[in-house]
Amino acid sequence: MAAKNAKISNVVIKRLPRYRRYLRELQKKGVEKISSKEFSELIGYTASQIRQDLNCFGGFGQQGYGYSVDGLYEEISTILGLDKQYTMVIVGAGSLGQAITKYTHAPARKGFRVRGVFEVNQDLIGTTLDGLPVYDFEELGTFVEKEEIDIGIICVDRDNAQDVADMLCVSGIKGIWNFAPTDIEVPKHIALENVSLTDSLHALAYHMNSLQKQHKK
Amino acid sequence: MAAKNAKISNVVIKRLPRYRRYLRELQKKGVEKISSKEFSELIGYTASQIRQDLNCFGGFGQQGYGYSVDGLYEEISTILGLDKQYTMVIVGAGSLGQAITKYTHAPARKGFRVRGVFEVNQDLIGTTLDGLPVYDFEELGTFVEKEEIDIGIICVDRDNAQDVADMLCVSGIKGIWNFAPTDIEVPKHIALENVSLTDSLHALAYHMNSLQKQHKK
Repeated sequence: MAAKNAKISNVVIKRLPRYRRYLRELQKKGVEKISSKEFSELIGYTASQIRQDLNCFGGFGQQGYGYSVDGLYEEISTILGLDKQYTMVIVGAGSLGQAITKYTHAPARKGFRVRGVFEVNQDLIGTTLDGLPVYDFEELGTFVEKEEIDIGIICVDRDNAQDVADMLCVSGIKGIWNFAPTDIEVPKHIALENVSLTDSLHALAYHMNSLQKQHKK
Repeated sequence: MAAKNAKISNVVIKRLPRYRRYLRELQKKGVEKISSKEFSELIGYTASQIRQDLNCFGGFGQQGYGYSVDGLYEEISTILGLDKQYTMVIVGAGSLGQAITKYTHAPARKGFRVRGVFEVNQDLIGTTLDGLPVYDFEELGTFVEKEEIDIGIICVDRDNAQDVADMLCVSGIKGIWNFAPTDIEVPKHIALENVSLTDSLHALAYHMNSLQKQHKK
């Protein structure tokens, strides 16, 4: 079953990894099929939302049968491109870079392989970080180009993030995962995901205060 | 200028930390006031969107003058609750917990103070992680209650995340920042922010593949 070529909205894309996680849980429990109604109760989206989302890709469900858990899991994995292997580099070996290295270099991230960390600090160059080589930042462009690296993970401070992004882009990177606390711009043919942990922590602070106020009334 | 008590949509809340970041940048550059039009060009939202968002909180702009950068920055900080101090505990000292400890324990996170890391692994208990004490997980409930901890950061694996959340909730936690790759549930009076780095990485993979296909056509 091939995915439709229709343009899929970003909102649906954002939900796919979550569908996939739930399907993986069902697989582990030995569940073979699931109706959109059962899936709805589990995941918290409405059944019609689920049908609509999954129809974007060509519709995997069979009337009166529901969805095959294995089939849907595989299909969503393929749509997300998780049947492929990706190589990555991390730029910045400061505390953010060290954190992200620790996270991305974990064995669970099997389709995504970190090839090295790049840093300007001469004290760190030539050392290793979680077993990964720390290279001179000066070599970043050549390395990305020569090794055909897919993803650049930006962990530098806000003032240098755009320069790093520009360098990655001219060196042929395909996607950028930005952890620097700033918005960067990339050419249209390059994929970009921003993760702002600080924004998330600040939203949490807001919700805490808002709930505390309600609670006191 | 007090914030309106009206219920503010989650979508607006999500944008506030970003407004605040841009205002901070403007402050650093010595900019004192900004019109919604100028702000729009900078941040990429429409001017009417900006006016609408900021009106939720009582409207800070003055006709013909624009927004005071300092005033708006302070006001948004207060709305987000960033004028207060928060204490936090990290649960789980595995690779995710280590990464998050490194990130949250950075000096830049000044309003948010990590008090300790909790772990079940006996080899780690009694050691330190980035200078933070690693305590026995058994002591988590008592510690949170006695020290009136505000935020619990969940960094355990998916199978234990809900149990940890439940324990934090009965111990009087006010907010949970969940990094475990699973959806957890908390009582209505407790704030919850989920961060799924894996979902973000998978969305990046999708966009990369989608752009590659377009590019080849």
